Parts: sequence; structure tokens; C-alpha cells
Amino acid sequence: MRDSRKRVASVIRLRPEKAEEYRTLHAAVWPAVQERIRASNITNYSIFLRDGLLFAYFEYVGDDYEADMAAIRADEITQQWWKLTDPCQEPLPTADPGEWWVEAEEVFRLDEHQHIGEDGR
Amino acid sequence: MRDSRKRVASVIRLRPEKAEEYRTLHAAVWPAVQERIRASNITNYSIFLRDGLLFAYFEYVGDDYEADMAAIRADEITQQWWKLTDPCQEPLPTADPGEWWVEAEEVFRLDEHQHIGEDGR
Repeated sequence: MRDSRKRVASVIRLRPEKAEEYRTLHAAVWPAVQERIRASNITNYSIFLRDGLLFAYFEYVGDDYEADMAAIRADEITQQWWKLTDPCQEPLPTADPGEWWVEAEEVFRLDEHQHIGEDGR
Repeated sequence: MRDSRKRVASVIRLRPEKAEEYRTLHAAVWPAVQERIRASNITNYSIFLRDGLLFAYFEYVGDDYEADMAAIRADEITQQWWKLTDPCQEPLPTADPGEWWVEAEEVFRLDEHQHIGEDGR
């Protein structure tokens, strides 16, 4: 059976002079921001950093992705949070005008519940 | 409670002229290669592509990461698979000599089982 859970990866640049500020902010993301993310059916969410690029990964477990993302964008506390984090970031040169984090293409997926070993193999 | 499951993200370049070949290979990864990955306690594994960069994400659910990774490297079928995929890839300039995929730093994590909503909030 195929895992239908949507996996979303996206990319943005981290401004080098803001790296420490970004790390500090993300070591203590405001609880209300985290709650808004979870309320929008996002789970298993990490952000990784390498060579000035931030990679976000999360799984979406709801059934109306656009509405759930819109609810995050409309949240006032989240907007306040972004006033702190946005100056740390810079969109990729290939982002569309106005686009911030850009999505990456999933080229491979190994699903969780095809896990072998459960039958002793 | 904190999710102790190790999340690993790593990065490598995809050679532009090999992008289609890489996609085709990964649309049908050899079953024995997938089985070896699962036998090494790796799950929820995706590879994403954006702007010539490949980002791998997986979760490790075993208790001896080094041994499980070594078992993959020692697997003959996996080595044959890598003879097809390695020419598609090129390490980042910041990779150590001999290093291939390089790990990224996790700067943020939202854990799965702190999920709210279960109590009606």
C-alpha cells in the first residue's frame, strides 16, 4: 500500500550574517507559531542548513492543503514571527516574483509501511 | 515527550546533463536496494530536487546507526546501483575529500506526537 501522506520540501537562502540569529530563533520557536503549524495538519517538520541553504521538510496529514496553508498565512502571531525570520532569509534566484520558500520536486520516495522485517525477513 | 528518532538530511549536486537519467533510475529503484535500506532501519526516505541540488531526507529507527550504514555500503547490489547513480552526482565544494552526500544541520524540529487537536483544541 502506498503512503499517500504528502511530503513537502522547500528551499530558501539563509543570509550568512543572520545565521546565528536564525539558529537562536529556531531553538525556541514561539509556542503559538508551533500550534498554528500543527493545527494546519503539518507534522514531522524539520529545517536543515548546509552551505547557506535552508531545506524545510514536513508532512501534511490534512485534506485541504491550500486552506490549511492559508490559515497559517492569515495568523497574526505567525505574521509577527515572520517579521523576525524574513530578514534572515533570501529567496533563491529561481523563485517567482513574490515567492519566498520554493518547493523542490520529489524524485524518490521509500514508504514507511512497506517496512520489511516485520515478517522476520 | 520528545521524538528521539534521528532525522538525517544530506545534500549533493545533480549533474544537469544527468537529471533525466537520475529521475528515471529513481522512479524504479531496484527492490533489493530498497530492501537493504529498510533492513538498515531507514524509513520515510525521500529525495528532492531543486536547481540542480538533491536533498535526501530519512528517519533512522534502529539503535546502531554506524553499523546499519556500513551494512548498506558493504552490500554488493547496492554497490552496483551506485555505479549507475554516482556518475549523475557531484559532491558539494564543501565536502571533505572522499565524502559524497554531505549532512546538513538540523536547526528546527517540530515533533509529531506533540500534535495538538487530539484534545479538541
